[in-house]
Amino acid sequence: MTSTGEPAPGGGLAAALVDHAPIGATAEPRLAAVISEGVRHPGKLVRGRLAQTVGSVLEVEPSSVLRMATAIEYFHLASLLLDDLPCMDDADLRRGRPCAHKTHGEAGAILGALAFINRAYALMGFVLAGWPRHTRIQAQAGLDACLGWAGLVGGQARDLAFSRSERTTREVGRIAVQKTTSLLWLSALVPALAGFATPVELRALRGLCLYWGLAFQGLDDLRDLLTTSFDAGKSTGRDRVLVRPNLALHIGVPEARRRITHLLTQSRRSLDALGHLRPGWSRLEEFQRELEHVAAPLVATGQEAA
Amino acid sequence: MTSTGEPAPGGGLAAALVDHAPIGATAEPRLAAVISEGVRHPGKLVRGRLAQTVGSVLEVEPSSVLRMATAIEYFHLASLLLDDLPCMDDADLRRGRPCAHKTHGEAGAILGALAFINRAYALMGFVLAGWPRHTRIQAQAGLDACLGWAGLVGGQARDLAFSRSERTTREVGRIAVQKTTSLLWLSALVPALAGFATPVELRALRGLCLYWGLAFQGLDDLRDLLTTSFDAGKSTGRDRVLVRPNLALHIGVPEARRRITHLLTQSRRSLDALGHLRPGWSRLEEFQRELEHVAAPLVATGQEAA
Repeated sequence: MTSTGEPAPGGGLAAALVDHAPIGATAEPRLAAVISEGVRHPGKLVRGRLAQTVGSVLEVEPSSVLRMATAIEYFHLASLLLDDLPCMDDADLRRGRPCAHKTHGEAGAILGALAFINRAYALMGFVLAGWPRHTRIQAQAGLDACLGWAGLVGGQARDLAFSRSERTTREVGRIAVQKTTSLLWLSALVPALAGFATPVELRALRGLCLYWGLAFQGLDDLRDLLTTSFDAGKSTGRDRVLVRPNLALHIGVPEARRRITHLLTQSRRSLDALGHLRPGWSRLEEFQRELEHVAAPLVATGQEAA
Repeated sequence: MTSTGEPAPGGGLAAALVDHAPIGATAEPRLAAVISEGVRHPGKLVRGRLAQTVGSVLEVEPSSVLRMATAIEYFHLASLLLDDLPCMDDADLRRGRPCAHKTHGEAGAILGALAFINRAYALMGFVLAGWPRHTRIQAQAGLDACLGWAGLVGGQARDLAFSRSERTTREVGRIAVQKTTSLLWLSALVPALAGFATPVELRALRGLCLYWGLAFQGLDDLRDLLTTSFDAGKSTGRDRVLVRPNLALHIGVPEARRRITHLLTQSRRSLDALGHLRPGWSRLEEFQRELEHVAAPLVATGQEAA
């Protein structure tokens, strides 16, 4: 459901995740279980819904946007399966349930992630097949940059190497950009290219995703520090134990709160700028409100952790 | 080098693996090391060379074929990095050196594999961008089928689940088809589509890859049983310990040898049939000879293991 109580735009998306799931009657049972549980507990679908909203603003054919959004959510699902592994974040809980590797073994989680990635690329490939060549190449370059060594994969590598790095605030930021903003930006980029967004719109969207991503990661860092695993639905308190990049651990809770508030002000300004370029962009307000809603209890002053 | 002593067609391929490697100056050092070591010890490049030969027979533009072949080898490299993990085959040695996870940790090996997969899809995407839409969609479907739950990933899942299965000879064969023949077939399929191979040629190529793949896996199974890790350059003797599908363990060494010999007879017949369709297909003889060369000491009678 959206925060306004309207029918969730992610409704069709949740069904599409099940419909396109990379399983079939002859799939190995453990692999099938990982995939099936993954698509049946899809979380808030922020990235897929962002893709759908960008697509709707630019009037991209909805069934095509739905496949892009599904692909984006599969990439995200894969990254969660892998990030939770013992050799990565060693998490126990995800989306309020035991992690896939706890239930189905590490190999099951890894192979499930690969099946999602493979199907995500297939969906993207089928969608891109109908595009003009130039736009298709731009989208391919975006997938390469956002997901590979310079994006999601590289960000996770830096995250794990943080304890061996100089542990600068700059490195904390750089990791958040690679790990978190990359996939948000990809979620907006692919449908924006499909809808022939102007270069000015693309730049503004990129800025918006950067602010949102950094705020989102900052809030996740605060949550890791300030809440229990039960409330968060995933393992918390891990960053301190594992010496991981955590904004609030690094610059202190009050300064982290100030930065997150500032990032949300900047993202609101980007939204306003986009609204002047094309009125439809105001539909992205939904995500700004969701982030502000998540931020409210975490950044409120006077609730400092000991 | 080819068995005929000509300059190896894989020469340009080995350089391309380095040129397209998914690393850059700002890559996290451990991730960069996994990638760099992977591309600098590329093995025999069977799959990439197969793609190059099929491309050359059909006169596909060589730089385009080189990118397909590089992508195929990256998929293969990724599968080796992951198959060797403790939760999968728990191997120590690969290509005569310690496995990546032994040197750089499990997370390093997993992230390296993902970086290879991401770059492989990017290379395929760029190559496909220039193709007619219908052919592009056929190639996308091939990537999905050969690499995902019904192909490589699913085969590895079945392989790991073998000890919990009914352990039939049929299951041993099915796993070999999914795990081994899938990637060989993909190596031939993509350049064959690029070169507009006829449906009859595609069917014959598919049969050939099936026989080769099953013979190749059968020989790998024999090698696991009959040779030392030092001679093989990778961990051997694992299938018995880990209760993995191994043709020779399953039906006995003499019967496995007979089957491999029969498969090589069948692949030779497929080659002859292809040669009648288009004389250039005789260039695939090279791979038949390589397989027969590998097979000779392993299937020779009178060298039975105790």
